[in-house]
Amino acid sequence: MTEFIPPGSRFIDLPSPFPMRRGGEVHGARIAYETWGTLSPARDNALLIVTGLSPDAHAAASDANPEPGWWEAMVGPGKPIDTDRWFVICSNALGSCKGSSGPASINPATGEPYRLDFPELSIEDGAAAAAHVVRALGIGQLACVVGNSMGGMVSLAMLARNPGIARAHINISGAAKALPFSIAIRSLQREAIRLDPQWNNGHYDDDHYPESGMRMARKMGVITYRSALEWDGRFGRVRLDSDRADDEPFGLEFEVESYLEGHARRFVRRFDPNSYLYLSRSMDWFDLGDHCPARGGDAEADTRAGLATIRLEKALAIGATTDILFPLQQQREIAEGLRAGGADAAFLPLPSPQGHDAFLVDFDRFGPAVRGFLDSL
Amino acid sequence: MTEFIPPGSRFIDLPSPFPMRRGGEVHGARIAYETWGTLSPARDNALLIVTGLSPDAHAAASDANPEPGWWEAMVGPGKPIDTDRWFVICSNALGSCKGSSGPASINPATGEPYRLDFPELSIEDGAAAAAHVVRALGIGQLACVVGNSMGGMVSLAMLARNPGIARAHINISGAAKALPFSIAIRSLQREAIRLDPQWNNGHYDDDHYPESGMRMARKMGVITYRSALEWDGRFGRVRLDSDRADDEPFGLEFEVESYLEGHARRFVRRFDPNSYLYLSRSMDWFDLGDHCPARGGDAEADTRAGLATIRLEKALAIGATTDILFPLQQQREIAEGLRAGGADAAFLPLPSPQGHDAFLVDFDRFGPAVRGFLDSL
Repeated sequence: MTEFIPPGSRFIDLPSPFPMRRGGEVHGARIAYETWGTLSPARDNALLIVTGLSPDAHAAASDANPEPGWWEAMVGPGKPIDTDRWFVICSNALGSCKGSSGPASINPATGEPYRLDFPELSIEDGAAAAAHVVRALGIGQLACVVGNSMGGMVSLAMLARNPGIARAHINISGAAKALPFSIAIRSLQREAIRLDPQWNNGHYDDDHYPESGMRMARKMGVITYRSALEWDGRFGRVRLDSDRADDEPFGLEFEVESYLEGHARRFVRRFDPNSYLYLSRSMDWFDLGDHCPARGGDAEADTRAGLATIRLEKALAIGATTDILFPLQQQREIAEGLRAGGADAAFLPLPSPQGHDAFLVDFDRFGPAVRGFLDSL
Repeated sequence: MTEFIPPGSRFIDLPSPFPMRRGGEVHGARIAYETWGTLSPARDNALLIVTGLSPDAHAAASDANPEPGWWEAMVGPGKPIDTDRWFVICSNALGSCKGSSGPASINPATGEPYRLDFPELSIEDGAAAAAHVVRALGIGQLACVVGNSMGGMVSLAMLARNPGIARAHINISGAAKALPFSIAIRSLQREAIRLDPQWNNGHYDDDHYPESGMRMARKMGVITYRSALEWDGRFGRVRLDSDRADDEPFGLEFEVESYLEGHARRFVRRFDPNSYLYLSRSMDWFDLGDHCPARGGDAEADTRAGLATIRLEKALAIGATTDILFPLQQQREIAEGLRAGGADAAFLPLPSPQGHDAFLVDFDRFGPAVRGFLDSL
């Protein structure tokens, strides 16, 4: 039951109690964030980065924390998100275990971690928390909100529920609603954790930890975040040296299996399993169509209508052609929906081989795309 | 530890001992098979169906077993594989638990099931067994061998190692080698079974059975056998009625989760877990490039060379555009390789939304494709 709070994090208290969309409320909740650059006197150069499921608020190195951040290549002086021009804010998601309140945080009512007593978490709750961060920093209107993956969902919910909160938006590998294929994969990841006897309905500790379940969940994630195409070129059919292969029956033998194992081992003790379950489920529940003014029987139409309620000057939806988790059609839907709402909105499919994770690694493609859009603002 | 042998199965004994490619040998092994139609006096109308991982030999209803078979729409009088014309043979895979010898069979040396004492199984062993079935039935040359999925791998190995055994070949959603993405998915499925304490290194029984592990493995299979596109149309974001939803924390809530659960529950007690592990691993190991006369350092070239050693008059490689497990490029590679070997070989990508499993359900597309090829022979 550990939180993983990067040094140099700052915090903003949420209103207390903070009501949650699906019921219940949180007392004394807070959101971790970092900033880079300087807010202009007119307060018109603020850019908010809304993250995917696992990152913390440390998107890039800063004076307070010189360690490279998870989007180091994208955020900094002269970089695509240029901190010489923009006052950049990155907040850690509500429900996460990296500084913001979530299932791993202490419940002030009991002095113990919330665990499964944390209220049900929705994307809209994360959006409300992010909007509060913006207001608490004294920013009336963001110049741009950039949302990646789950952060793309949170961004859309924030824009829909807080008219005028931003002038522009970049949605990267995001979605206006969860698709059944993605729900199925996430459901299976959660099942792997829930099946681990050490999960114990959320009552694990460091000595009794759902290590196997988390490892399985993470491996499924890594498989679905990437793409067959990339792995073929990267691993082919290379086998492990005999000293690295696994003697267990049906144990590791191919390089790709070892890669997965390494990725999973690095993750399992660095992310709280209950947080993972909450954030994962929040994505399944998300459908911007729930926000459209008049729901019809047609789910597609609802989603489009939900998007069209959003008012932006300019928007860009970027996706990777090889993404199977948030497939390209979802970014096209976002661009078309935002355009229907009056935005000058473009859809940009990038032929990255790296699947859903491309925005975290394919800076040759994502860098110029983001830079070009921001330069045009 | 159960075998699931369809009524009406017939058996052919393999040579005893039957040597296995990766070492060891099996004594008293047999292959289950069924046939439909009549072998012509010239013995030139035999067609062998080589199955994927899970099917038995009961491809279609017969006098001995009137139950519909797993490829009922494709095999029968007047159907795409027309039993009025062809003498159709379908054999159960070596290593399976559906009549052919495998880990669930009795080891004559001990009187107990083999479990993990069954020798390591390779695709080539399955190919040798299938070739023996053909010879034992008195057939010098097959008119055609039709291999699906894993059966596509077995067919290629059989063709490469038994020159002249067939005049024509249809490879459906098959592959000449395993790709790392597919290896990763299968590795994770095996890990789910191995992590289940009830698996117990293969020493389970009906009362202590790796039910959870098998359920996870099967769900991963179902997810990767199908495609995002199909599921979007089929399930959308439909939720379960409250009486069908699951009260457990993070339990089932969406229709797609219930569909997966139902599929998995039907499978777990109908397939032997050890057999599953053996057959799954055999696919990872397969690379037809191993059979090419002079191996170079270039794995792609090796695979092509392996394919080009096969002599056929005519061939067809069919794939589904939405298959992520045996992606289309692999069927293209087969057609090009067989063409390099002198065959009149065509590649036919079909825009089925059903992914890898399309050949089991999309008869509107796969039926005419198979029929058209067989009519041309």
